[in-house]
Amino acid sequence: MLYDVTLPVSSTLARWPGDPPVAVDWLGDDIRVSRWTLGSHAGTHVDAPTHFSAGDATVDTLDPAMLVGPCRVLDLPDVPRITAAVLAGQPWQGMERLLFRTRNAQGWVEDPTVFDPEFVGLSRDAAALLLAGGVRLLGTDGLSVEPFGGDGAVHRLLLGAGVILLEGLALAAVPPGDYTLLCAPLKLAGADGAPARVFLQTI
Amino acid sequence: MLYDVTLPVSSTLARWPGDPPVAVDWLGDDIRVSRWTLGSHAGTHVDAPTHFSAGDATVDTLDPAMLVGPCRVLDLPDVPRITAAVLAGQPWQGMERLLFRTRNAQGWVEDPTVFDPEFVGLSRDAAALLLAGGVRLLGTDGLSVEPFGGDGAVHRLLLGAGVILLEGLALAAVPPGDYTLLCAPLKLAGADGAPARVFLQTI
Repeated sequence: MLYDVTLPVSSTLARWPGDPPVAVDWLGDDIRVSRWTLGSHAGTHVDAPTHFSAGDATVDTLDPAMLVGPCRVLDLPDVPRITAAVLAGQPWQGMERLLFRTRNAQGWVEDPTVFDPEFVGLSRDAAALLLAGGVRLLGTDGLSVEPFGGDGAVHRLLLGAGVILLEGLALAAVPPGDYTLLCAPLKLAGADGAPARVFLQTI
Repeated sequence: MLYDVTLPVSSTLARWPGDPPVAVDWLGDDIRVSRWTLGSHAGTHVDAPTHFSAGDATVDTLDPAMLVGPCRVLDLPDVPRITAAVLAGQPWQGMERLLFRTRNAQGWVEDPTVFDPEFVGLSRDAAALLLAGGVRLLGTDGLSVEPFGGDGAVHRLLLGAGVILLEGLALAAVPPGDYTLLCAPLKLAGADGAPARVFLQTI
């Protein structure tokens, strides 16, 4: 079975403050075509290392073998932040790909048009712990892995080590557990990130 | 092993005559963000049924279970058109998902910026044969399954029957044979089609 864990892209979808809005022009008549304008970090998307460090890897060069493979979805419905202390009670060890389902998941169900600055993100100590533990792809259901108002330290730590970040997942319908991740960012040449279609396949 | 069979999206990528060009604005400085404008049929992309028939299924509603699964890549390097007669000599029967590798594949390698109106497409009799044989997803390495200057009959036949069309594949490096298709169109709400990231996984 496949879960589609992608937010639908539309002009009303919540976006990061300051990010370009999604716009669509409906063209054609007998034959329908449309023109979409969207930011590289719109909706469900991947951050590439160059997002925070010029000259680092761009999204089109990420290794497909890391985008597709075994992953674990961890359920953290009650925490305001994912810290090292929170992770201490979770079975995350040994996984290269980890996705966090938090209270953000329900927010997307209730109103996908609203950006909530109180969304759940990771603390730097959690990021450092996961990095040291061998995580290579990290996904969350907030529009950023890093809490709003952060100084970028979480991004710099993870992206600087080549960890692929997957943000804006729609996880409300997904039971925690192990899956095969199919993470497919658009192949935008030279880009800092890209909107993605993401599926979770039951094992 | 995974093959990435996606054309890189850039402002120089060849496009269908009349389709919106790809444009990119590089924003940000310390933190890189970009804004992309692109047509729903840019580069490697999926056609949804509503592309040729208002009210039919949109790309965001296509069944993920059809986008992911067993497929066969057939090699037709020498034909100017894929006709029913051509298919008679090919082992396509029994597959729900079929991808055609033609001389178009080499064209993308030689110069991805040029739209070649002589690209290889399907004749209507081939489309009818495949449809009757149970094909539900059809992929080609041209920007359209239908030859340039066609009247839309191939599209109408296939899309009208709910067949998913996958166009603009980059197949030059892929040996013919059987794979697991991972076809991931962007989840563009209400759209006639969407740029896609597509992988082929060896079995």
